[in-house]
Amino acid sequence: MEKSYECPNDKSKDVSLKELRDRLAEFAEVRGWEKYHSPRNLLLALVGEVGELSEIFQWKGEVAKGLPNWSADDKEHLEDELSDVLLYLVQLADVCGLDLGRAALSKILKNARKYPVVVNQKPKSGYN
Amino acid sequence: MEKSYECPNDKSKDVSLKELRDRLAEFAEVRGWEKYHSPRNLLLALVGEVGELSEIFQWKGEVAKGLPNWSADDKEHLEDELSDVLLYLVQLADVCGLDLGRAALSKILKNARKYPVVVNQKPKSGYN
Amino acid sequence: MEKSYECPNDKSKDVSLKELRDRLAEFAEVRGWEKYHSPRNLLLALVGEVGELSEIFQWKGEVAKGLPNWSADDKEHLEDELSDVLLYLVQLADVCGLDLGRAALSKILKNARKYPVVVNQKPKSGYN
Amino acid sequence: MEKSYECPNDKSKDVSLKELRDRLAEFAEVRGWEKYHSPRNLLLALVGEVGELSEIFQWKGEVAKGLPNWSADDKEHLEDELSDVLLYLVQLADVCGLDLGRAALSKILKNARKYPVVVNQKPKSGYN
Repeated sequence: MEKSYECPNDKSKDVSLKELRDRLAEFAEVRGWEKYHSPRNLLLALVGEVGELSEIFQWKGEVAKGLPNWSADDKEHLEDELSDVLLYLVQLADVCGLDLGRAALSKILKNARKYPVVVNQKPKSGYN
Repeated sequence: MEKSYECPNDKSKDVSLKELRDRLAEFAEVRGWEKYHSPRNLLLALVGEVGELSEIFQWKGEVAKGLPNWSADDKEHLEDELSDVLLYLVQLADVCGLDLGRAALSKILKNARKYPVVVNQKPKSGYN
Repeated sequence: MEKSYECPNDKSKDVSLKELRDRLAEFAEVRGWEKYHSPRNLLLALVGEVGELSEIFQWKGEVAKGLPNWSADDKEHLEDELSDVLLYLVQLADVCGLDLGRAALSKILKNARKYPVVVNQKPKSGYN
Repeated sequence: MEKSYECPNDKSKDVSLKELRDRLAEFAEVRGWEKYHSPRNLLLALVGEVGELSEIFQWKGEVAKGLPNWSADDKEHLEDELSDVLLYLVQLADVCGLDLGRAALSKILKNARKYPVVVNQKPKSGYN
């Protein structure tokens, strides 16, 4: 039996990766979808969602921070696609048995060591 | 001045999307990188990381859940690439002025309405 | 005025990259679409099509060579998505002023030098 | 025994998709790599190369047609990455038993029917 979801409209809510992981695991379990959630299936689904995210931006030329002049509908569409990427990423980490939140904090630490603070340093290939 | 990062080795730690967002915003700010973080720059950086994530899986054929027989090094590499995707996703949402955690919870709710619980239902185009 | 397209059903037809480039340039020109075809717009459109291509394969688990058991419709859908990726790639190279066919032959040569013929050699990170 | 490759420096050369397909098939065959070239392996390799292509553009903001001010080295790097995407795409179509050149011409025809010539029409979701 699926838990009822509380309303996510509380703007102060601080959503954790484990909360998402647990909700998605339950979501898949009650629907019998776990058997489709192999690592490479989820990875390709993630790539599919990254494609949908890119389509939103594809004909726009440069887009300013904060998305001035975007309609509420366009912003909601973007939120949905960003979320789809996140949800598959959380599930991919989960079926691989990895702790995504802890991994992300560790990666920020690695990046901080790799890129010590220097004013006006240009990112070359990013944090990788 | 950058805050010192506490050790992320506490396995019970429940990392939130806002914590990641705030750390990444500070990370970019103290390095003077904010000027590079336009939405489409971050999106292409995200695509780059999805590519690196895919490279890990590209010659493996099907991969079993839990990654049996993967070395600790290979798992850490995967954690790093999953994290890179997440970190750019969090930053992309942030520069767009969107609340990724709240959006993700809303999307799970939408998915729950779109795919009511039916045993053994096959995902067709996924949660999108 | 757009040229009439000959029927592409001649199976022996050997389609060249320059033919595709020229047809696509004319296609965009007569529609007034050239102004949208900046390099990064076309790149994001390409990423979008790679996403659609991935969606075809996402829930299938391993797929055998030759696509046994795929319907004619599914194969045509796949042909369309493969083509969309190709068409944006050809246009991206074109607006960058690069000769994709010549570049591809050069890259095969580089790969041949990088990976001399050894029986049963495993590709690690591919031809890159 | 691998054929010697003729020099691709003849600028008038019109490279066909079948020529690329045949060269790549031979390339894989003489190296014993065919066993790694399942459809989903090649698809993930393609995604990896799209990531490398995106990395070239990720911190640049808008890029003008013709790549003014790019160095010869940067252009060659871009040619290599465009080619890597093309080469995996050709191989993916090949292992699926599909004729990519013919499919691409058919797709252009479909697009011409879907988007009849109207001056200044804006592409919405592109040719898909």
